[in-house]
Amino acid sequence: MIDLPIRDDLRGLSPYGAPQLDVPVRLNTNENSYSVPDEVVEAIGKALQAELRDLNRYPDRDAVALRTALADYLGHGLTVAHVWAANGSNEVQQQLLQVFAGPGRTALGFTPAYSMHPLLAVGTGTRWVDGRRDEDFGLDAAHAVAQVREHAPDVVFLCSPNNPTGTALDPAVIAAVLDAAPGMVVVDEAYAEFARPGTPSALEVLPGHPRLVVTRTMSKAFGFAGGRLGYLAAHPAVVDAVQLVRLPYHLSALTQAAARAALSHRAALLGTVEAIKAERDRIVSALRAAGLGVADSDANFVLFHVGGDQKAAWRALLDRGVLVRDVGLPGWLRVTAGTPDETDAFLNAMKELDR
Amino acid sequence: MIDLPIRDDLRGLSPYGAPQLDVPVRLNTNENSYSVPDEVVEAIGKALQAELRDLNRYPDRDAVALRTALADYLGHGLTVAHVWAANGSNEVQQQLLQVFAGPGRTALGFTPAYSMHPLLAVGTGTRWVDGRRDEDFGLDAAHAVAQVREHAPDVVFLCSPNNPTGTALDPAVIAAVLDAAPGMVVVDEAYAEFARPGTPSALEVLPGHPRLVVTRTMSKAFGFAGGRLGYLAAHPAVVDAVQLVRLPYHLSALTQAAARAALSHRAALLGTVEAIKAERDRIVSALRAAGLGVADSDANFVLFHVGGDQKAAWRALLDRGVLVRDVGLPGWLRVTAGTPDETDAFLNAMKELDR
Repeated sequence: MIDLPIRDDLRGLSPYGAPQLDVPVRLNTNENSYSVPDEVVEAIGKALQAELRDLNRYPDRDAVALRTALADYLGHGLTVAHVWAANGSNEVQQQLLQVFAGPGRTALGFTPAYSMHPLLAVGTGTRWVDGRRDEDFGLDAAHAVAQVREHAPDVVFLCSPNNPTGTALDPAVIAAVLDAAPGMVVVDEAYAEFARPGTPSALEVLPGHPRLVVTRTMSKAFGFAGGRLGYLAAHPAVVDAVQLVRLPYHLSALTQAAARAALSHRAALLGTVEAIKAERDRIVSALRAAGLGVADSDANFVLFHVGGDQKAAWRALLDRGVLVRDVGLPGWLRVTAGTPDETDAFLNAMKELDR
Repeated sequence: MIDLPIRDDLRGLSPYGAPQLDVPVRLNTNENSYSVPDEVVEAIGKALQAELRDLNRYPDRDAVALRTALADYLGHGLTVAHVWAANGSNEVQQQLLQVFAGPGRTALGFTPAYSMHPLLAVGTGTRWVDGRRDEDFGLDAAHAVAQVREHAPDVVFLCSPNNPTGTALDPAVIAAVLDAAPGMVVVDEAYAEFARPGTPSALEVLPGHPRLVVTRTMSKAFGFAGGRLGYLAAHPAVVDAVQLVRLPYHLSALTQAAARAALSHRAALLGTVEAIKAERDRIVSALRAAGLGVADSDANFVLFHVGGDQKAAWRALLDRGVLVRDVGLPGWLRVTAGTPDETDAFLNAMKELDR
């Protein structure tokens, strides 16, 4: 490779991303395994068609109609002024770091958590602090607060349900971090729709907490990963602040139209959520019955202990046509909960592994 | 506004963007005034339809098919390895600053030029140096080189044809800056397809210049502003470097499919370019005949001197249903070249202004 003058802090890094392999059972990126239903295909197709003749014009820079639809979906009294959207929650979170962190500032997350958070910090020149969880991947309020006080980060990332462990945070942890944090608190709720009954969203505590930001995505429960739509809910001042760094016209007319149509048909799209949760619970039960360690899951995936080298187990599953995710935790793998057939294929492959 | 802990260097800034006003003649954002032709509407519609059922899956993270099509369009022996794409050339340029500039580094552009360049610098924590042009907005090699030597920037932006002035750079300036620059040189060719005959693209000098990056967009000549597709051509090592900061799955399946379909029908889309250039030349001639100062234009817009206060002239044109752009240059306005009817409306409105 030619010696280009890239930043020193990027040298030696690899691009983020799981292998995109063409195998029968893809359970590695927490996609929704169900194809888009016919009625939604038709609706999105019509909505897109209506945009095509005018693609010569720039889209609505403020995506007002889409943000209004997202606020309506979230409920909790939220309006267009509380919601912002971008090309995936990665872009939303990058924008948040550009406004509230960046050079000379610090962001803290409690790892293992979503592995893009530290990469977004690098990309925005933000100093990253790897906060710690308990050995069982839990995080209690006192431990979280102690770390926030120690590092006084400008941005704290909480991930609930947490990826890759799957477990939702105790609301008391969020409340305690909100009290202790000197800056912004971002709760990444990418998997919120899969949470077990009785798990509250941080949306409930938005009133009275102008430094709280809740991020969401349509990639998971909505089965809209290919459409790339992430969003946030927060005090309107946060939305105003993000405008200072958002790229103008960042959301295409096609993205806005497709996402609006998907939201209009959310009952059909979210109709898969209960079935996925059932498969998730089946995976948890089956692996525990087999004597493996499994983290509680409020998401559409399960983190499990393979009882040995996770790289060998990952390869052995792939050899059986099942692609799961090695998230870099020694001894652990992550599997997405998809269709019943996919669960069968995964569990059968697991039975064949030498343990 | 609630006092949020936004970065000090963002305080007091306003979000970028021209007013999005609903007026009969919109000549303020250099869009292509021609709607997408029927055959292309049909082709894009079909291409999108084919993606909808699988929107539950993430898109090709590397956008290989789209980049291959873009390389084919550019010619010059370029391949997929030389090309990278993102949601508008703004995102491409932001990625370039993230990799090659950022905290502790410097970018220089010769203003007035594309006004997003300094904003992208702010957003990426890059120190921005406002390079100078001659009083007539020209830039000669000696002047450019002297400024590059003085500031030793990590990234130099050249804009050719330049926005908002409209004039393409003498290739000798690009060659001289490439020789003198210690870091990367980004030539923003958003308007390249509109250049007057005999204007070479910087693509011609890519071989042998691994630190040269040429950025392009489908928003202008292709009439694809609503689809949001920008791209770059450079040495493959530059494309590799950008991978370190690109957001995973940044380009939706819809964007990739729509842009590919548009490229497949480029003859139909680019068929408007000659008509637009004719209107551009008509505007230049008419304004010069009226005694106004007008910059040479290789783009789909014209920068002209209003012979007085440009804010009053902007308002007076708007009152007559014609929206042009006040780019913040005292005494000057910028007007997009669109359809013959739009040119008539603009020139008639100009005749009515008191000068």
